[in-house]
Amino acid sequence: MSATASNNAVVLLSGGLDSATVLAMARAQGFDCYALSLDYGQRHRAELAAARRVAAALGAVEHKILPLSLDAIGGSALTDRTIAVPEAGGDGIPVTYVPARNTVFLALALGWAEVLGATDLFVGVNAVDYSGYPDCRPAFIAAFEQLANLATKAGVEGRRFHVHAPLIELSKAEIIRAGSGLGVDYGLTVSCYQVDQQGRACGRCDACRLRADGFRAAGIADPTRYRA
Amino acid sequence: MSATASNNAVVLLSGGLDSATVLAMARAQGFDCYALSLDYGQRHRAELAAARRVAAALGAVEHKILPLSLDAIGGSALTDRTIAVPEAGGDGIPVTYVPARNTVFLALALGWAEVLGATDLFVGVNAVDYSGYPDCRPAFIAAFEQLANLATKAGVEGRRFHVHAPLIELSKAEIIRAGSGLGVDYGLTVSCYQVDQQGRACGRCDACRLRADGFRAAGIADPTRYRA
Repeated sequence: MSATASNNAVVLLSGGLDSATVLAMARAQGFDCYALSLDYGQRHRAELAAARRVAAALGAVEHKILPLSLDAIGGSALTDRTIAVPEAGGDGIPVTYVPARNTVFLALALGWAEVLGATDLFVGVNAVDYSGYPDCRPAFIAAFEQLANLATKAGVEGRRFHVHAPLIELSKAEIIRAGSGLGVDYGLTVSCYQVDQQGRACGRCDACRLRADGFRAAGIADPTRYRA
Repeated sequence: MSATASNNAVVLLSGGLDSATVLAMARAQGFDCYALSLDYGQRHRAELAAARRVAAALGAVEHKILPLSLDAIGGSALTDRTIAVPEAGGDGIPVTYVPARNTVFLALALGWAEVLGATDLFVGVNAVDYSGYPDCRPAFIAAFEQLANLATKAGVEGRRFHVHAPLIELSKAEIIRAGSGLGVDYGLTVSCYQVDQQGRACGRCDACRLRADGFRAAGIADPTRYRA
């Protein structure tokens, strides 16, 4: 653990469209990027294969996939197979919400950052298309930054953590435009909650709708492979 | 996930002396306790066996052991076998510090709490004997409570999380006296960083010294089994 300034950043990478864009942004800002994916019992495991492709394509220095049994805790349609994933969203916080997910993921990113001597974390949360997830709001990100400064050796030594959430105020179309400008190949990414083994999207779930609408609004051809 | 008040609490349980005391305290306060242990690649795996014994002895409703590969992140003598555990402590933050450990553990406890409809978390951090770990300070606990309220569905719905750290201002002797008064059998617990397969302590590492000094200062017989 170095006490000196570091060009390293830990980037949370899900294999979806948003976090791929964030990785490209972090690289464009000159960071040496350490990509972290969590294998948390998610249904859409094709995401992890996508994360591997994206990390390689966008020049991550290292890509770690950490197994984490959130399915043992349950409570979400994304990890608990007894809860159905809805095809269209309702009001309020959806059943696809994973309890404390971003808190857990950022905490793990923070741990790796300490080991790397890094004080920069990147996360692809989005408050516009955030579907009501509480841990995608700017106030949450600010609170985590505070916590990181108190939680760590680096913080005690007077260094400041910065949790970058560059997508937080962007629409899906703006995200897609930004990423396309940075050369992100969105054909490598997976968003669908019910993607099949071949990586083909359902085209009907909330995540698919947001993504397809985003490409339409951005005026950029949608490279997603659909089943139907 | 219930929106009503709950008598459930999630208690982080390591199998050590401190967290056993905390579990007894939470029970004495009338909480239905859900004990959470993390299998994070720690060297002292006898702790997990101890956690199982303690959870059963102190009436936890449920005990979950969540596998978590912190050893993949490295950076601590407790999870990285290339770093030696020192027998006596030096100044500053020791090499046994696990990066962001309490942040990660509390985040996972928070996730389970959401699923259980609980807003009470218990953790055995201690600022007196804390050996310089930044994530054992009162300011850290307060920051995590803030974060929990922003991070969760329960928080959005106006319920308030409470992170109980009842040992935070107690000396080891005070902890031992409190737990003994609540019927904790410390013979079930393991503190040693280098405990052997039979659960016998080395008697020489920082954790052993703190523990032995605590029993001496409390005037209570030390039930620890030592190797030598």
